[in-house]
Amino acid sequence: MSIAPAATQPATTTDPETLGWMRGFPPSPDRTITFRDGSFRSFPELRWAWSNIRQLVPTVNVWRGAGPASPLPRAEQDIGAVASTTMDGRPMTFAKMLEETYTDGVAVLHRGRLIYERYFGALKPHKPHIAMSVTKSLTGVLAGILVAEGRIDPQAPVTDYVPELKASAFGDARVHEIMDMTTGLLYTEVYTDKNSDVWGLRRANGMAPIPAAYDGPTTIFDFLVAQKKQGEHGKAFAYKTVNTDVLAWIIRRASGVTLSDLLSERIWQPMGAEEDAYYHVDRIGTESGGGGLSTCLRDLARFGETMRNHGRFNGRQIVPSSVVEDIARGGDPDKFKPAGYTTLPGASYRNQWWVTHNEHGAYMARGVHGQGIYIDPRAEMVIARYASHPMAGNAANDPVTLPAYMALAKALMTGG
Amino acid sequence: MSIAPAATQPATTTDPETLGWMRGFPPSPDRTITFRDGSFRSFPELRWAWSNIRQLVPTVNVWRGAGPASPLPRAEQDIGAVASTTMDGRPMTFAKMLEETYTDGVAVLHRGRLIYERYFGALKPHKPHIAMSVTKSLTGVLAGILVAEGRIDPQAPVTDYVPELKASAFGDARVHEIMDMTTGLLYTEVYTDKNSDVWGLRRANGMAPIPAAYDGPTTIFDFLVAQKKQGEHGKAFAYKTVNTDVLAWIIRRASGVTLSDLLSERIWQPMGAEEDAYYHVDRIGTESGGGGLSTCLRDLARFGETMRNHGRFNGRQIVPSSVVEDIARGGDPDKFKPAGYTTLPGASYRNQWWVTHNEHGAYMARGVHGQGIYIDPRAEMVIARYASHPMAGNAANDPVTLPAYMALAKALMTGG
Repeated sequence: MSIAPAATQPATTTDPETLGWMRGFPPSPDRTITFRDGSFRSFPELRWAWSNIRQLVPTVNVWRGAGPASPLPRAEQDIGAVASTTMDGRPMTFAKMLEETYTDGVAVLHRGRLIYERYFGALKPHKPHIAMSVTKSLTGVLAGILVAEGRIDPQAPVTDYVPELKASAFGDARVHEIMDMTTGLLYTEVYTDKNSDVWGLRRANGMAPIPAAYDGPTTIFDFLVAQKKQGEHGKAFAYKTVNTDVLAWIIRRASGVTLSDLLSERIWQPMGAEEDAYYHVDRIGTESGGGGLSTCLRDLARFGETMRNHGRFNGRQIVPSSVVEDIARGGDPDKFKPAGYTTLPGASYRNQWWVTHNEHGAYMARGVHGQGIYIDPRAEMVIARYASHPMAGNAANDPVTLPAYMALAKALMTGG
Repeated sequence: MSIAPAATQPATTTDPETLGWMRGFPPSPDRTITFRDGSFRSFPELRWAWSNIRQLVPTVNVWRGAGPASPLPRAEQDIGAVASTTMDGRPMTFAKMLEETYTDGVAVLHRGRLIYERYFGALKPHKPHIAMSVTKSLTGVLAGILVAEGRIDPQAPVTDYVPELKASAFGDARVHEIMDMTTGLLYTEVYTDKNSDVWGLRRANGMAPIPAAYDGPTTIFDFLVAQKKQGEHGKAFAYKTVNTDVLAWIIRRASGVTLSDLLSERIWQPMGAEEDAYYHVDRIGTESGGGGLSTCLRDLARFGETMRNHGRFNGRQIVPSSVVEDIARGGDPDKFKPAGYTTLPGASYRNQWWVTHNEHGAYMARGVHGQGIYIDPRAEMVIARYASHPMAGNAANDPVTLPAYMALAKALMTGG
């Protein structure tokens, strides 16, 4: 997590469509975005890039299967005017919140019906947008499914599944410490600091160019094996993506299949996703389980609704209810508190999900540019959102989005 | 075209699944295939790579739309024993032909029914395989559609659409010379010669790594603009992929949309494709219109059937019948003859299709590792095939495949 510098330009003036990024044959040089020059990570270029990751890097498909998409019944409500107050005291509406937080797409489900769906920027209903750290929450659920089946033991050492990690920071870690991110690692994750270790992970997982004469790891596996310990495992939550990449590795070893095939077989196909999803992959085909998934917005909403329904969706039990309930119950707020997330007082982190412990028992999947799934069990509401906020950190979104979500939940409970 | 050296190992011992390429987490070093080290183009590695292009390079989606897949009625026949004689006099069966020519998948339609469908190697029904130069025939059909709509004039200078080509070899070429590949170009296309210009095109279109200190073109556009003329336009057929990349550029300028969106809107969606397809793209997002398409086999078969039915499929006229009939009628065999394709006596090349002028009026889309669509109007037969032949050139396939296709056609005409 990081507190990023103030945004310079609002969503309306940085719309990638009106700015004409990557338009024309060829696009004009000042409207061209490439992987090699790193421009895809600049703002406002990222507003195009986050909806077009596969044009920049290699990817692997997550097949939706051959069947029909599951129904997503509609009951349109104009919730744009629902009022809230930001954490810093400003009056806000739901529609204004979307604009202020650079939303590319939002889908709101209430009692299983799609009541509101909007697209902005470069996103279209059938186009996948990168979920970034929302990916982690899907990895966590896949791990949970394997735990429920007895194929992963949360109490077992990580090295039971990945013995090659013996000499690394994870050599004496247990699986549940990986799931809950309570490992003690030297690795730092400050997106706005080019010297932070997260950039090494990005070079390794294929999401940053490899500089000339670079001799660091160029695969996720090599990066994980090289991680060093700092402090103790199990003591405190520290948000570090390498944990999820280790968890993805445990999942591959325990299931015997790739993360992309497992997500397809266990969730995307049974859920009746309407579009294929994809992971970006490293130079040897490894999916980035910590941040590499791109999905269309409605499928993200379907997955959120699956969770809200205790794992049941499209007429079948997709995720064991015990897995969902374990996540919704949350982790230990005392282990979460030292991390200092001022916008999430009293929260916890459990198996790759953020649990608010608020009055509605809401829990979330969160991506660093404002992507998210917000599940409010009490209000029977799910919000799926893709965004391309210029600031890499949810501290930029939460003060505006979280009060708006709660206000909407309350409005739906009284009005619905 | 080129005559490649003799194959060393047969299909059975080079099956990528049994050899375990890219299996395991991570795959063992001697079973790892990467883009950077060029191993994806080695044999037998390419037997895995041609079914997994998107894991190696950036791609852009060709959306199938939200509707159901069009029906592909089945009427299974065991045609594996249908006998033929190879051009060099060996007895052959249809099944043996498939094995000898490193088939990854084959689908045979007779009178619109799927009578035979087999998968080998790394290919699966829902997985796209790279079509390579079969891509050209789709580009040709898209151009034909725009010609029929009056948006492209085959007699117009290329520079009417792409003025930036003024100083290039294409500066005094006409669109129909591009469509029929009768331009006079210095550019050489010998796949087995690392010094051939086609490798420059591959570096430019993203299908070959860029060496350190390389200062050549790194986009398709830059490569095309630099092409030099040799000889005269309009005199003789010479198979050179740059023509198709120019044609793709004319299509983009005439239609105002990307090749991927146009293929989706004009063919993939109306045809009721069952899977999305994709193009690999260069470093600024340009589709390789000359060889970059990957599709699943059944959709290739659907497209072949669309052509056989004079452009009509899935209850609608997808391609104007005039476009199909113009292709089926063929080009000028006298312009084709000097190119010296000994396996295609009396043939011609018309708008990116190979026309046999044989007794059945068969015409073909052809890819360099044995990919193909074979349309036999008289026998009401379509064969769609993906393959990963070690030899880069259809001279290695034709002596075995073409007699087998004709034998099957005759068997179906008498037996069906």
